[in-house]
Amino acid sequence: MEDYENARSMILGEIRIALGAIDAKMVEEMIEMICSAEKIFVIGVGRVLLMMQAFAKRLNHIGINANYVGAIDEPAITEKDVLIVGSGSGETAVPVAIARIAKKHGARIIHIGSNAKSTVGEVADLFVRIPCRTKLNREDEIDSKQPMSSLFEQSLLLFGDIVAFMIIKRKNLDIKALWCKHANLE
Amino acid sequence: MEDYENARSMILGEIRIALGAIDAKMVEEMIEMICSAEKIFVIGVGRVLLMMQAFAKRLNHIGINANYVGAIDEPAITEKDVLIVGSGSGETAVPVAIARIAKKHGARIIHIGSNAKSTVGEVADLFVRIPCRTKLNREDEIDSKQPMSSLFEQSLLLFGDIVAFMIIKRKNLDIKALWCKHANLE
Amino acid sequence: MEDYENARSMILGEIRIALGAIDAKMVEEMIEMICSAEKIFVIGVGRVLLMMQAFAKRLNHIGINANYVGAIDEPAITEKDVLIVGSGSGETAVPVAIARIAKKHGARIIHIGSNAKSTVGEVADLFVRIPCRTKLNREDEIDSKQPMSSLFEQSLLLFGDIVAFMIIKRKNLDIKALWCKHANLE
Amino acid sequence: MEDYENARSMILGEIRIALGAIDAKMVEEMIEMICSAEKIFVIGVGRVLLMMQAFAKRLNHIGINANYVGAIDEPAITEKDVLIVGSGSGETAVPVAIARIAKKHGARIIHIGSNAKSTVGEVADLFVRIPCRTKLNREDEIDSKQPMSSLFEQSLLLFGDIVAFMIIKRKNLDIKALWCKHANLE
Repeated sequence: MEDYENARSMILGEIRIALGAIDAKMVEEMIEMICSAEKIFVIGVGRVLLMMQAFAKRLNHIGINANYVGAIDEPAITEKDVLIVGSGSGETAVPVAIARIAKKHGARIIHIGSNAKSTVGEVADLFVRIPCRTKLNREDEIDSKQPMSSLFEQSLLLFGDIVAFMIIKRKNLDIKALWCKHANLE
Repeated sequence: MEDYENARSMILGEIRIALGAIDAKMVEEMIEMICSAEKIFVIGVGRVLLMMQAFAKRLNHIGINANYVGAIDEPAITEKDVLIVGSGSGETAVPVAIARIAKKHGARIIHIGSNAKSTVGEVADLFVRIPCRTKLNREDEIDSKQPMSSLFEQSLLLFGDIVAFMIIKRKNLDIKALWCKHANLE
Repeated sequence: MEDYENARSMILGEIRIALGAIDAKMVEEMIEMICSAEKIFVIGVGRVLLMMQAFAKRLNHIGINANYVGAIDEPAITEKDVLIVGSGSGETAVPVAIARIAKKHGARIIHIGSNAKSTVGEVADLFVRIPCRTKLNREDEIDSKQPMSSLFEQSLLLFGDIVAFMIIKRKNLDIKALWCKHANLE
Repeated sequence: MEDYENARSMILGEIRIALGAIDAKMVEEMIEMICSAEKIFVIGVGRVLLMMQAFAKRLNHIGINANYVGAIDEPAITEKDVLIVGSGSGETAVPVAIARIAKKHGARIIHIGSNAKSTVGEVADLFVRIPCRTKLNREDEIDSKQPMSSLFEQSLLLFGDIVAFMIIKRKNLDIKALWCKHANLE
């Protein structure tokens, strides 16, 4: 019988390794691309989409215009914008299709994924790699005891929050004042 | 056996009566409130929410900042904004709770509903009535052969599109040019 | 100044023509496919997706297991299932991609669209045509004074509700009893 | 200048403390309630809702019927079901309203929150406490350098995944076989 403490340690341990494997230089480039864009669009599928939406929500709180592809108030993408694609394999049909369309509109593309060589990767301007095991199961990926792509999803949420935190520090934002951009109908 | 033509006639007939029962003066006031607001928020539950979201999406296309309560990029509501509550009965728990909070923040409230006297109605600045039968089944409501609140939902979509069309005409917008505000990642 | 009555008549008139142009035989085939499927999946983009979701919600109320592609509890599609694609042009990237994947999994596909010859149409087992004007602007399509694909979206909602109503009649369902399948957390 | 490594360590450190403060006995009770329920409903607001949806999605993968309040195929809740409310403060209007309605329908309620004494807590059958700082700022809560309720949201995702992992182990599920319940239209 697996108990709470063991499961917690195992999962936190895996996340520590995954986040530790991200190239800090890529993070710097990602922050620069985000901060110089007019608008940010995010896309993903399933739980990955939920994590990307959580990232978009936090970006709005810190004054960066961000939304997911498919949102009710989704505007047209332009060459001043950045599309961030969350996809472990980089081969999921919908993100691939959307990344190609975004490219045609001249937008810049950031891919956060695991698979070092992928279709999304080919159209991306920047690739931030979190080398978790994917369905494709490459040799240079971190193996995980967790089901499906849990480790990628967990790392994605925390990575987004790290990036948001770094932007807050660099812009010297007053954390308490952020609440004024937060939804108040709840 | 009910066939396609009969069902179509029955439903279109019911919608014609429901939309015909809306007070055109209230429509004028609604348009004025929408066009003088800084931002529009919409709320509803179930299929009513879907119709309100469709209305918000069209408002964005015609240059009016609109979103639903709960959206990823939902901003704070202020006294310059309008909350539009879609609720047949005007008694559904979540819209009631949100309308009260919006009121506290000083926003103006439009209620589109059926029930002439309701809790949402009490906090609303404007009530646009589509008198379809509700679960509460009042005497002065249009009866319907359709299941549940179908007639209210159908009328709501078409009513929103009528309002959007009237705004387009009054602002003299070029319909073909509207596509530039339309999402292009699809 | 366009007033409420004029706009209402114009829109209802357009919808009457669009719904009148649907081939009743195709409706019969669609009902048969829906009623013999194990699960229904729906897909679309933007306001079309909202209308497809409204259709899925009503199908659940009448005891038919239906959901949209991307739902939190989305199961795997199998050859016993039907995917219903709402797409006026039949060329939108995401529905095209998903229809192809569904086909690979052996599911049957219904396309509700305007464009008589399209990529989605090629993989579809059944095509229900609502011949509204699309961006592609074919000769045999109904022209509309309304913006973008409003007429298609309106027709789609009403068409779905007509189909649901026909199923209710044929299964002899008790409309009042349907509320027991309706969400009660609202 | 805050760099990637520092931000990562700080955030992982905070999460370790937050998850470490959860009472393992409450986790056991939560697992029992989930596994003996017919259906699970989840609710939350904003990023908390996204994390609850991620939890619901994983529960479906492991064969547990779960959905969020407001889903397209949301069924009626009954006394055989469990509602899980994610709310740090336990005072957010919508979760409070929904928890009360669920109670009236006889459902059991699990509250995952921070605030030791709250309105949601009063109607809950089980309270799992992750004692992160809330807006209400109680003495016995973990302080955090992160903005708003980030720490609660992060802990919530990981906690849900720990619970799902524990259920997998206890039911002796084959992790590779789980993919068969995973959506395949992507």
